[in-house]
Amino acid sequence: MNMIDAPVIILVHPQLAENIGTAARAMYNGGLTRLRLVSPKGGWPNPDAIKPAAGAHRVLEDVEVFDSTAEAIKDLNVIFAATARRRDMLKPVVTPKAAAQNFHDLMRQENKVGVLFGPERTGLDNDDLSRVDTIINVPLNPEYTSLNLAQAVLIIAYEWIQASDQASSFASEKTVAVAPKAELLDLFEHLESELDRSGFLRVPHKRPAMVRNIRNMLLRADLTSQEVSTLRGVIASLVDPYFKRV
Amino acid sequence: MNMIDAPVIILVHPQLAENIGTAARAMYNGGLTRLRLVSPKGGWPNPDAIKPAAGAHRVLEDVEVFDSTAEAIKDLNVIFAATARRRDMLKPVVTPKAAAQNFHDLMRQENKVGVLFGPERTGLDNDDLSRVDTIINVPLNPEYTSLNLAQAVLIIAYEWIQASDQASSFASEKTVAVAPKAELLDLFEHLESELDRSGFLRVPHKRPAMVRNIRNMLLRADLTSQEVSTLRGVIASLVDPYFKRV
Repeated sequence: MNMIDAPVIILVHPQLAENIGTAARAMYNGGLTRLRLVSPKGGWPNPDAIKPAAGAHRVLEDVEVFDSTAEAIKDLNVIFAATARRRDMLKPVVTPKAAAQNFHDLMRQENKVGVLFGPERTGLDNDDLSRVDTIINVPLNPEYTSLNLAQAVLIIAYEWIQASDQASSFASEKTVAVAPKAELLDLFEHLESELDRSGFLRVPHKRPAMVRNIRNMLLRADLTSQEVSTLRGVIASLVDPYFKRV
Repeated sequence: MNMIDAPVIILVHPQLAENIGTAARAMYNGGLTRLRLVSPKGGWPNPDAIKPAAGAHRVLEDVEVFDSTAEAIKDLNVIFAATARRRDMLKPVVTPKAAAQNFHDLMRQENKVGVLFGPERTGLDNDDLSRVDTIINVPLNPEYTSLNLAQAVLIIAYEWIQASDQASSFASEKTVAVAPKAELLDLFEHLESELDRSGFLRVPHKRPAMVRNIRNMLLRADLTSQEVSTLRGVIASLVDPYFKRV
């Protein structure tokens, strides 16, 4: 995934430079680098944004500033708006997850996509919303929806990178093969012969179920070869302690 | 979805009360209300947490405080840990989305689930990770992974509430819960004390990794209470055989 082919994040009238910094940080976590500001309070550049950006310099360096929302979206093809409140506007409303999938679909069709976020307290006004194609509504606790600007940006960035091809590959876990069954069977035999000798399995009619239970536990652990030999060491050591031998 | 039937969030040694507040806010956004703190710096309750919680009083009021991670997870059955760093531990690693689905599956089987978050700068130590069943790794920009505590909590809470909408429609298939962590920790202690006595763990610089490996195998087996007591019987029997006693 080329990072240039990603949605543009547009903060409309952000009131605090600190929030621009934290939004930049949230963006970069999800691999988003293109940030536009519509007449930020306090102007731009603003040194107060640097520390909260926590090293997301790449985002801050490339910030573009516009006088109006209309100017900021001019060269883009499709505009989403993230807003917590439902408006009685006849526009499609999607979840962040669905939006992220839409971004990919739209960009494959060579659309440039932007996502608008409103000012911290007031949110986007109806004038801005009138320019938007689709509303993104974050599903939250109906009794408490209180996302700050950076958190709202983070959810979008997180879903974006999840939807990216890249995401699926680096979230995958490194796996180690489990032990060949021969090793596991040797482990069973080792343990069971010691338990026969110790008397743990001394009641004949209970023995089959007990053996089955113990084998099931060991099978469920998906042991590697290394782990099988560790367990055999454990058994040998409990039966024949090193410290008594010397 | 009843809010009581939701994962417990456990913050291990949080360094700033402000971050406890922002984490509470993030939790409540996703409908999570049960917060545990392991020896928070500055003690608890702490007035500095209130404003950052932005009205998520319900979470702060019910906070439980513990002296150690072991105490905090004792009554829970399955523990996840959110950590940005990959460890060379053989534990399953899942995305937040997969974890949220797991939470629902596990709780349908009457397991109590906890999610550990480490201290702000240092993250969870290996000792804490040794008690964990599954690692949650947030897929982020590989060149920049910089989530603060509240953001990491938010991602988990967000995926939780997303999965809740879907989960409510699934039919329940109840199976047996895994053992409460107190029983598993007792099993660890029993086995490790016997292995110390036998000399299996006699090389000091190897001991921590060996203990970790053995704990991981046992954690991975998802043992029930019945199975834990079987294993304790196995250990006791190998150490002190019935047939020699009579």
